Amino acid sequence: MRLLFATGNEDKVREAREILEPKGVKVEHLEIDYPEPQVDDLETVAREGVRYVFRKTGEPVFVEDSGLFVDALNGFPGPYSAYVHGTLGNGGLLKLMEGIRDRRATFRSVVAFCDGPGVSVHVGEVEGEIAGERRGTAGFGYDPVFIPEGTGSTFAEDPEGKSAVSHRRRALDSFAEWMGPSRA
Amino acid sequence: MRLLFATGNEDKVREAREILEPKGVKVEHLEIDYPEPQVDDLETVAREGVRYVFRKTGEPVFVEDSGLFVDALNGFPGPYSAYVHGTLGNGGLLKLMEGIRDRRATFRSVVAFCDGPGVSVHVGEVEGEIAGERRGTAGFGYDPVFIPEGTGSTFAEDPEGKSAVSHRRRALDSFAEWMGPSRA
Repeated sequence: MRLLFATGNEDKVREAREILEPKGVKVEHLEIDYPEPQVDDLETVAREGVRYVFRKTGEPVFVEDSGLFVDALNGFPGPYSAYVHGTLGNGGLLKLMEGIRDRRATFRSVVAFCDGPGVSVHVGEVEGEIAGERRGTAGFGYDPVFIPEGTGSTFAEDPEGKSAVSHRRRALDSFAEWMGPSRA
Repeated sequence: MRLLFATGNEDKVREAREILEPKGVKVEHLEIDYPEPQVDDLETVAREGVRYVFRKTGEPVFVEDSGLFVDALNGFPGPYSAYVHGTLGNGGLLKLMEGIRDRRATFRSVVAFCDGPGVSVHVGEVEGEIAGERRGTAGFGYDPVFIPEGTGSTFAEDPEGKSAVSHRRRALDSFAEWMGPSRA
């Protein structure tokens, strides 16, 4: 089965292929901009995005929206994680966390799929904490400063660990399970 | 003349009344949520917002979107100023600016007006810098940390000064001038 993945982020395409191709889903990258509403929940962003892209393409397509929600920062950067990473970077996030003891954070991913009038939404989460400094060189985005629960390594230090437990892995697994063997 | 101002922010309504009522424009507060796209320019947010509200109300209406763009932070928090103020507050912004010498920032306001198929857009800006600490109690939002150029006081220390030179004053003045005496 072949599915379009509408995103501007090549790294996400690479990750989606690693996760979905072993399940028999061929992921094709569709580079398209879609409007994202300024709302605090990723689900609405993904739902509206995938509807927009489906109207344009008429082909089965999914989008993915993700965010890092830091407890001590009231969920910041949350739905604006990409914008904040582009302006402040990991350095800015670490600066905001200086002197803060509660370093808990959640990475959340929402995959929305559309092949007709309905949209299916699949959510994945991983809890963890913000590291004291950047560590590791793999991955992208906030990977060098996010340590998933139960490990001592950031996503950027342990790409295999990331691939096994990440928010995106969980959302895409749930999506693949929903599709089932007959669809996939 | 009576105009609807669609916003969820009472402080903005108060400021708009101070500026527009002496010019003969009666400002009526319309509390309505409108979708805001996640884009980096305030103009698109305001344009799309006012079109949406006009479709709902069929009455002449304006909206206002504003943001604080900090040079050393690559324009952060910019279009997401309200979200960032709600999560990080002025304390978070000051923390990000610790140790940074270039404290230049611009407050930008975009007013978009619609009374039919077209939309008119009016922009106001004020340059200044980010204070070293919160000062003053008037105003709202980032007012305690923004010092407009040529003064030594924050907007929150000098509300009369704010009313005279603010980004919102400038955008609303330009809007009122565009309406002209016959419209207003």
